Amino acid sequence: MNSLLTLTTDFGTTSPYVAAMQGVILSINPQARLLDLCHEIPPQDVRYAAWFLREALPYFATEALHVVVVDPGVGTERALLYVETAGRKLLVPDNGVWTWLSDQAPQRVIELAERRWWRPTVSHTFHGRDIFGPVAAHLSLGLDPAQLGPLRLTWVQLPWPTPHHVAGMIEGEVLFIDSFGNLLTNLPATVRQPEQTYELHLGNKVITHWVRTYGEAAVGEVVALISSGGWIEIAQVHGHAARQLGTERGAKVVLMPLRSTWEV
Amino acid sequence: MNSLLTLTTDFGTTSPYVAAMQGVILSINPQARLLDLCHEIPPQDVRYAAWFLREALPYFATEALHVVVVDPGVGTERALLYVETAGRKLLVPDNGVWTWLSDQAPQRVIELAERRWWRPTVSHTFHGRDIFGPVAAHLSLGLDPAQLGPLRLTWVQLPWPTPHHVAGMIEGEVLFIDSFGNLLTNLPATVRQPEQTYELHLGNKVITHWVRTYGEAAVGEVVALISSGGWIEIAQVHGHAARQLGTERGAKVVLMPLRSTWEV
Amino acid sequence: MNSLLTLTTDFGTTSPYVAAMQGVILSINPQARLLDLCHEIPPQDVRYAAWFLREALPYFATEALHVVVVDPGVGTERALLYVETAGRKLLVPDNGVWTWLSDQAPQRVIELAERRWWRPTVSHTFHGRDIFGPVAAHLSLGLDPAQLGPLRLTWVQLPWPTPHHVAGMIEGEVLFIDSFGNLLTNLPATVRQPEQTYELHLGNKVITHWVRTYGEAAVGEVVALISSGGWIEIAQVHGHAARQLGTERGAKVVLMPLRSTWEV
Repeated sequence: MNSLLTLTTDFGTTSPYVAAMQGVILSINPQARLLDLCHEIPPQDVRYAAWFLREALPYFATEALHVVVVDPGVGTERALLYVETAGRKLLVPDNGVWTWLSDQAPQRVIELAERRWWRPTVSHTFHGRDIFGPVAAHLSLGLDPAQLGPLRLTWVQLPWPTPHHVAGMIEGEVLFIDSFGNLLTNLPATVRQPEQTYELHLGNKVITHWVRTYGEAAVGEVVALISSGGWIEIAQVHGHAARQLGTERGAKVVLMPLRSTWEV
Repeated sequence: MNSLLTLTTDFGTTSPYVAAMQGVILSINPQARLLDLCHEIPPQDVRYAAWFLREALPYFATEALHVVVVDPGVGTERALLYVETAGRKLLVPDNGVWTWLSDQAPQRVIELAERRWWRPTVSHTFHGRDIFGPVAAHLSLGLDPAQLGPLRLTWVQLPWPTPHHVAGMIEGEVLFIDSFGNLLTNLPATVRQPEQTYELHLGNKVITHWVRTYGEAAVGEVVALISSGGWIEIAQVHGHAARQLGTERGAKVVLMPLRSTWEV
Repeated sequence: MNSLLTLTTDFGTTSPYVAAMQGVILSINPQARLLDLCHEIPPQDVRYAAWFLREALPYFATEALHVVVVDPGVGTERALLYVETAGRKLLVPDNGVWTWLSDQAPQRVIELAERRWWRPTVSHTFHGRDIFGPVAAHLSLGLDPAQLGPLRLTWVQLPWPTPHHVAGMIEGEVLFIDSFGNLLTNLPATVRQPEQTYELHLGNKVITHWVRTYGEAAVGEVVALISSGGWIEIAQVHGHAARQLGTERGAKVVLMPLRSTWEV
């Protein structure tokens, strides 16, 4: 028993916080198998982390334990949770960061309450080191999650930005801008009808060229495609769409059907 | 015997230097357990690295070996050292980077002199790859540190910026700005007297609101608190204090007691 | 059999792509020994990656498998390759990224064609997750590379920027700017004749001070030296030569002999 422990935080890569948390984990379980997923979640950006987890965690085996420390409420009365959802196991603050992983109810939610699995002294500002780290290490050594605290029946839900259907159009938003500057929207590929063509409106820009992959259009062209995660995506071929279009997260995107073939 | 090897460097994350060093280590000890603590120490910034180590290394078990390559003097006559201090083991250039870990004398300091543990050819500019890497790998395989070279009785000491007591006030400085923009000072929590209230002066800004954690004040407010490492810290709630206040490392901070209760 | 798997990509460190790829690998081989070499190759910058590999891979043992996903042609007809060259093993897109590792012909090139080693569904835009990841995992478990597909006798070659000899001078270029701002050129140390002194021309700047290492000149001075990889390098002592000189990759560098001693 030595399950994979993944870490996702907003600690950044220039501060000693990731190292301190890893030191605590490795002091308890010297053979812990740590994997850094991301430490550059923008500070306190729970929605960014929620999307990140939704796109990354499905590819991991069910045994892994995913520790997520994006925690604007650290030290306040917010709870810390052990969650089993969508076949995944997580340690998270109770801020909804895990709730985009599945539309289904979680299998189990436990509140971290048993202080004997924590560091003896708990700071007010660094629960990654003082609570999440040691709890994760003990779980990786085989601790039964039921020992962590009581079951919990309520939790904070992060509202998923559901697209709106308006007058035949579907209105969504840019949920995530990736490292390439590609714009990932909350519009799943499945909102499109087969045999129907569409254009995308983003601000005063209209994108009409749909491709399967970047190399199918000219360098510099702005295109629409289906992302590797199944979302409608806007990209600039070998460029940076967000910079090119001046787009920020949250920007409105409208999917508009052109006159459909059966109307002709 | 296969102790954890941690790496802390100023090599950055876009150059091939970390990879080359790791390749050398793994060629000698294919089972080496490597952990990257930080590769984004600002170039040649020994004080930054010294603070980083002081805040991170106490959380590791004593078995770990910490390799630190922040080495403005690479290739000059400066020595390379194996150090045991504060229950920690390090490989460091002799520039004082380890000397903030403890006020006590080190348990042992050895100069790296035995070239048979180095790469056969040693460059003038990359001792991380050519000396530190192979020496670390051999130590992780169980090499007795006494084989590395002679004991050393002198070394470079990095002066700790001791706070000054002036007319009832205590003057310190901003030692570190973390990834959240929080200002960590060299004023330990213990300089404050119980039953006494204080204000902090930073440039022409006065901070009077002391909190236990960020969530106890309004978003955007600048507050004082005790950091998770035990230092007086200045933060902006859900913001970036350094940018908000225009503060750089080294800025003077004055802790000023208000009229104390026993004077009333 | 559980060889080291290294990852070099242009995925960036803020997107979920590295995590997804690692999840796929660890789902197939839970004991995979992953090492991140770099995920900050500039997007689609095949030449940057080619240099990175040339400088880093020689330090790894021959057993390691190096997965390189810098792939502007993802989803198009470009092939994916398993390559053995210069005693190294790689998985790469067929864009020449591996071809700077050696002047010799590769030992073996195989086209990834056998879909049974891929994810069942392959996206058009993320072959790192859907093809490279699972193939790498299977290889790390001992799969014979011959099972991946047919031998290939042609591939894309990335042209090496050979220096030109012109009227006694040698003209090269800045091939890489490292994290310290040092300028690495395509001029090998061996182009210099012993007993001959040289100056370097870069734009309208002339560099005449040759040193063995940075600490041999005054802080702020721009110097020439031989890099740890054996190339002529231009650096600013404790500074950032690229910013100081306003130099970008591709800038022309001329190595000019001064009147040689035997001409006197």
